[in-house]
Amino acid sequence: MKLRNPPVNSLSLELLTELVISLEKLENDKTFRGVILTSDCPRVFSAGLDLTEVCGRNPAHYTEYWKAVQELWLRTYLSSLVLVAAINGACPAGGCMMALSCDFRVLADNPKYHIGLNETLLGIVAPFWLKDAYVNTIGHRASEQALQLGLLFPPAEALQVGLVDQVVPEDQVLGAALSAMARWLAVPDHARQLTKNMMRKATADRLLRQRDADIQNFISFICRDSIQKSLQVYLEKLRQRKG
Amino acid sequence: MKLRNPPVNSLSLELLTELVISLEKLENDKTFRGVILTSDCPRVFSAGLDLTEVCGRNPAHYTEYWKAVQELWLRTYLSSLVLVAAINGACPAGGCMMALSCDFRVLADNPKYHIGLNETLLGIVAPFWLKDAYVNTIGHRASEQALQLGLLFPPAEALQVGLVDQVVPEDQVLGAALSAMARWLAVPDHARQLTKNMMRKATADRLLRQRDADIQNFISFICRDSIQKSLQVYLEKLRQRKG
Amino acid sequence: MKLRNPPVNSLSLELLTELVISLEKLENDKTFRGVILTSDCPRVFSAGLDLTEVCGRNPAHYTEYWKAVQELWLRTYLSSLVLVAAINGACPAGGCMMALSCDFRVLADNPKYHIGLNETLLGIVAPFWLKDAYVNTIGHRASEQALQLGLLFPPAEALQVGLVDQVVPEDQVLGAALSAMARWLAVPDHARQLTKNMMRKATADRLLRQRDADIQNFISFICRDSIQKSLQVYLEKLRQRKG
Repeated sequence: MKLRNPPVNSLSLELLTELVISLEKLENDKTFRGVILTSDCPRVFSAGLDLTEVCGRNPAHYTEYWKAVQELWLRTYLSSLVLVAAINGACPAGGCMMALSCDFRVLADNPKYHIGLNETLLGIVAPFWLKDAYVNTIGHRASEQALQLGLLFPPAEALQVGLVDQVVPEDQVLGAALSAMARWLAVPDHARQLTKNMMRKATADRLLRQRDADIQNFISFICRDSIQKSLQVYLEKLRQRKG
Repeated sequence: MKLRNPPVNSLSLELLTELVISLEKLENDKTFRGVILTSDCPRVFSAGLDLTEVCGRNPAHYTEYWKAVQELWLRTYLSSLVLVAAINGACPAGGCMMALSCDFRVLADNPKYHIGLNETLLGIVAPFWLKDAYVNTIGHRASEQALQLGLLFPPAEALQVGLVDQVVPEDQVLGAALSAMARWLAVPDHARQLTKNMMRKATADRLLRQRDADIQNFISFICRDSIQKSLQVYLEKLRQRKG
Repeated sequence: MKLRNPPVNSLSLELLTELVISLEKLENDKTFRGVILTSDCPRVFSAGLDLTEVCGRNPAHYTEYWKAVQELWLRTYLSSLVLVAAINGACPAGGCMMALSCDFRVLADNPKYHIGLNETLLGIVAPFWLKDAYVNTIGHRASEQALQLGLLFPPAEALQVGLVDQVVPEDQVLGAALSAMARWLAVPDHARQLTKNMMRKATADRLLRQRDADIQNFISFICRDSIQKSLQVYLEKLRQRKG
């Protein structure tokens, strides 16, 4: 499955909805057992949430958008399919969220391809369920430090902290992802799916128990004047950089 | 304490019951403060559950057997004694379960002596409390991967992932286990026991709160035609290999 | 903030109270965003709890003292300030408790400067909330072993197990702490504080839900004849060593 929302695969409401529907279709089609997630945009796996969706809109839009973000995470984190991330570009914030939901992560060895949850640097805070997935992957202490500092890890560090499972030369990312997929598909589906669910259900349940509270929390935070202002400044900078 | 149920120390109902009773006796005898667990069978620490106990029998037998498995785990995991595993052979599944319950694990440096929870490869699933003990030992991410793929770790990898604490040449396993025991026995018993309980009680309590549900879950799973069939195929292979 | 209670910065009731009040003042003074915690006593960061406060006194005193210990931990662990520990000396037990509450730990590279929770060696047990903070920092398995054995880690081992974040030559400890502080202060305060709270609140809440039970537990333990006797023996030894 190739992410294609040029130039940087921002997770627009449209892309989120498409991803969820595609994944649902693949899960219901018994001929599919695994999916490799990669990017069709050069140098970027996904830049993460689409900030134009959370800046200058109304609460109803924020609600719809955040529900879609939650839905994508729940779908991918609990997917019965084997998901392998072939990370062929930068992978901050929401891009990292998708990678964290996969079963195996291969990162291209390019010093510009950083990965991590850098929300604090924009003055915002990762949701608790994404924090939980981070802790499950790299442990509590590393998460505490990385989340507070908004760290983005270059390949070697990402491998060392356990944020990715393998770092390979850029032209071998897809090959390595296919090899990983073969190893995962060698396991009987039913036992693997039950085991995956056993490992991840408690974490997903924490969100399922409080989806509405999580939405309210997001809206009240994102609607603050100070947050809106800092997002506008950031978006303006991005536009100038492109211009 | 030397496990002796040739040829591979399968955890038969009889062996499980004997182990629990022996442990109980040692715990009540105040002259004993620690136990080293090792194998009397060449090249195998323990092959794990005795599949003949869970294949082609009736639900009453499965209930009795699974209760005994739970009991052994609870007894060893919460033992007030210092338990050191001197792993002098292969240590898959139920063998690994016993090793995980110990306070310290020494593994003989033989590339054939693999250790891990490989249940998925047989199409079955480790119980949640064994998953919890795995996570407590090697962390969440390593467990997620190892449990889904049914990984068996050779000595160097087992040491690196933290599944064992020490790898030594085969003829030094018992010596290293005795040295470890001496270090653990240098600590005042009472403070050590309270500390051990503080570390492990929450994990054991999760099983104690739902022992019956765990038994029901095991029985309904193991009674499935597909599972019984795949176990039969596997047992048949084992018999042919021996024959 | 320099700890000064010669000769070894024992956490007397007075020092605990002072620390809590100072921290409260700094948190309410918006010109302060971070604090570096270090020692004014040569060769010792802090020797930990003041055993004269828990030996040969009455239950009312123990209650007051333990409340102050809890209060210091809660204040530091949840502090909205950036706390950096510049550990310029030995750091056992209660000293390690303070270091664990910080956001970043720098340790001087002196083989005599050990750090860890060595309570079991005195026949006592670390409280559950300190165990939780240990697990959050170095993981479950390392904590299980270190707490039971009462391990004190020399600098290189402390770094490897993740108990400190950086080891530097003794004369560079403060400089390294200042550099770390600069990195942490580069993050917007509000987002960093919310993230820190998200990471630590569940752990602090476990104590807040049962502060009284934790006090009762401490008192009934510390009042035992056997514990009082072993503390007296230990204090006597310390006095002779000094004399």
